[in-house]
Amino acid sequence: MLNFDFYNPTHILFGTDRLESIDKYVPADATVLITYGGGSAKKNGLIDKVKTVLGNRKVYEFGGIEPNPRYETLVKAVEIIRNENIDFLLAVGGGSVIDGTKFITLASFYDGDSRDLLKYGFMPITSDVVKKTVPFGTVLTLPATGSEMNSGAVISYEHGKYPVMSELAFPKFSILDPTVTFTLPKIQVANGVIDTFVHVTEQYLTYPVDARIQDRIAEGILQTLIEIGETTIAESDNYDARANLVWCATLALNGVVGAGVPQDWATHMIGHELTALFGIDHGQTLAIVTPALLEVRSEQKRAKLLQYAQRVWHIESGSEEKKIDLAIQKTREFFESLGVKTHLSQYGIGADKIPVIVEQLKAHGMTALSETGDLTLDISRNILERAM
Amino acid sequence: MLNFDFYNPTHILFGTDRLESIDKYVPADATVLITYGGGSAKKNGLIDKVKTVLGNRKVYEFGGIEPNPRYETLVKAVEIIRNENIDFLLAVGGGSVIDGTKFITLASFYDGDSRDLLKYGFMPITSDVVKKTVPFGTVLTLPATGSEMNSGAVISYEHGKYPVMSELAFPKFSILDPTVTFTLPKIQVANGVIDTFVHVTEQYLTYPVDARIQDRIAEGILQTLIEIGETTIAESDNYDARANLVWCATLALNGVVGAGVPQDWATHMIGHELTALFGIDHGQTLAIVTPALLEVRSEQKRAKLLQYAQRVWHIESGSEEKKIDLAIQKTREFFESLGVKTHLSQYGIGADKIPVIVEQLKAHGMTALSETGDLTLDISRNILERAM
Repeated sequence: MLNFDFYNPTHILFGTDRLESIDKYVPADATVLITYGGGSAKKNGLIDKVKTVLGNRKVYEFGGIEPNPRYETLVKAVEIIRNENIDFLLAVGGGSVIDGTKFITLASFYDGDSRDLLKYGFMPITSDVVKKTVPFGTVLTLPATGSEMNSGAVISYEHGKYPVMSELAFPKFSILDPTVTFTLPKIQVANGVIDTFVHVTEQYLTYPVDARIQDRIAEGILQTLIEIGETTIAESDNYDARANLVWCATLALNGVVGAGVPQDWATHMIGHELTALFGIDHGQTLAIVTPALLEVRSEQKRAKLLQYAQRVWHIESGSEEKKIDLAIQKTREFFESLGVKTHLSQYGIGADKIPVIVEQLKAHGMTALSETGDLTLDISRNILERAM
Repeated sequence: MLNFDFYNPTHILFGTDRLESIDKYVPADATVLITYGGGSAKKNGLIDKVKTVLGNRKVYEFGGIEPNPRYETLVKAVEIIRNENIDFLLAVGGGSVIDGTKFITLASFYDGDSRDLLKYGFMPITSDVVKKTVPFGTVLTLPATGSEMNSGAVISYEHGKYPVMSELAFPKFSILDPTVTFTLPKIQVANGVIDTFVHVTEQYLTYPVDARIQDRIAEGILQTLIEIGETTIAESDNYDARANLVWCATLALNGVVGAGVPQDWATHMIGHELTALFGIDHGQTLAIVTPALLEVRSEQKRAKLLQYAQRVWHIESGSEEKKIDLAIQKTREFFESLGVKTHLSQYGIGADKIPVIVEQLKAHGMTALSETGDLTLDISRNILERAM
């Protein structure tokens, strides 16, 4: 097992009828800015319910945070915070709204050009850099990114997606009410299942370090997703299936799975370029890249792929190569069973675009990816060719 | 899945050579009281190492916190805190030292007779009751209780053991260095494996609520303990085995396993009386009570016992009764394989003592135990008879 630090102070309030908790966790005298996305939370009445719970507190709203939240949008919320003396933020939405709100809180009292905050990558932004933030809570509407219980965000600016990490960006609380997610379009639920699945595989399909309980938590999430994936898409109001998805999505990226193990975020990094260049949904990019990457990297990931084949897919017979191939095939079939296509060509992207994608990876410094730092641009090209 | 709240703000600093972190997490101008137990941490040089890291900070020591820490001992530390203006506590020890330190911090600025704090049971003590506490960190020397990453304690007073729960009692940080535990006597490691195992079964062997990932985390910890239990006792300095035990012990009782599922603490409650009356080690009491309780409660726990038989012990054939019997038998054999006896009579306790034990349960209000609240004194008597 590798050395690790684990810290996660977010209060989780999970289950039905939890909106009332907002009243307990938001200071009674706070001036609140509610942040949200494209308007579905507004239309379906969730924002109004939240405002009712907030009661006499002074409340402002900031809607329009887009999927893959953009710097240019978020800085407008910073102005409101400064002008109206906002002292609590409440993000009502999915990962994009929550990620965006994390950036807003970090930028609110940053002295200088807040685009600076996009330059830190995976290096955490500390209180030496950002001296003051606005506390925030979340009401999660989409189980997928895990942003509701971690301190990371991904922010889009011009043609890039930029990771932003900071212990100052943990939500104070997150309300996880599975019923709130019942109205989601099926494709968003499918993307959420895949995002959760790949968050886990990126922390699990690496190389073994004898981290037995971390492996079993990872395998437990994967098995649960395989069991409930199709059901929670087909039966939107099946509480138990959705509750299992919501909690798996949160656990997948709250630090527990990745504690003390190597991590490989290459799939996400390559996927980010596909979203930035072609607007493909994040979950879909992961469904495209994952099987191809596992095929190309099957030697480096051999031991863990065999464990994955056995424990997650219960593949017991055949040569080691056959077991690994079958496990990757089953992974692809699982994504497709959720209604998500797994080939670039199915999204209208031809092989002629591969050099453009590789160029973007190069431009963003993604030249030494993976758990071993040896996934070069040539290997990324190979992965993209496999993903056609 | 049941509704739940999850909150755990303790920083975990896991791995080799982590003592240096103390310097980062203890304020530079703090006056520190180091709390410890019977002296092994003093003798083996750990306290000195900790003091070296604390550098120029003013440091006091309070040793002698006994296993099953006693109120009468702990109040003496409260006097030191008040007299010397201590503003940080550092618990160096196992669950008893950490539990004791939690009580010390809660009692330090409590207005009134601090025995009041023993009366809350499983009802959390809030900041309305305890208005100020002394922050504390821990250096864990014994993987067992999980106290290093939760907000609970068990305190002994006169002839009883009293649970104390408070969000004010989370450690600020806990240093989990598996090598620090290499010098432990084998029996203490065995007790720690069993304590961890039973923390999990008390949150897992209840009734099903379709909490799939919680079940799999529970099963993952149990399987890991079964795999590494004998090894980590036999090979004291096997880092990987011990690291897996340490992290399992922490995860078993940090709230993750019990989130959203029913919990049955009857084994612990009955075990506490055996410790209080006869001085049997906590881990040993659990090894005595667990198999007997599972036998007596096999109807109530039927569905989860079958799942346990299949997923943890890989029992695939035979009638349901046979599978359950075999799973309980294997549990008993596992405890015995660690060198821990599982029958009361093996500890010199005869059947004539059963009425005394039942009387103590009655005196402490333990008349409606278990996840369903229907484990009466008669059933406890039956369990104790089975445990002879």
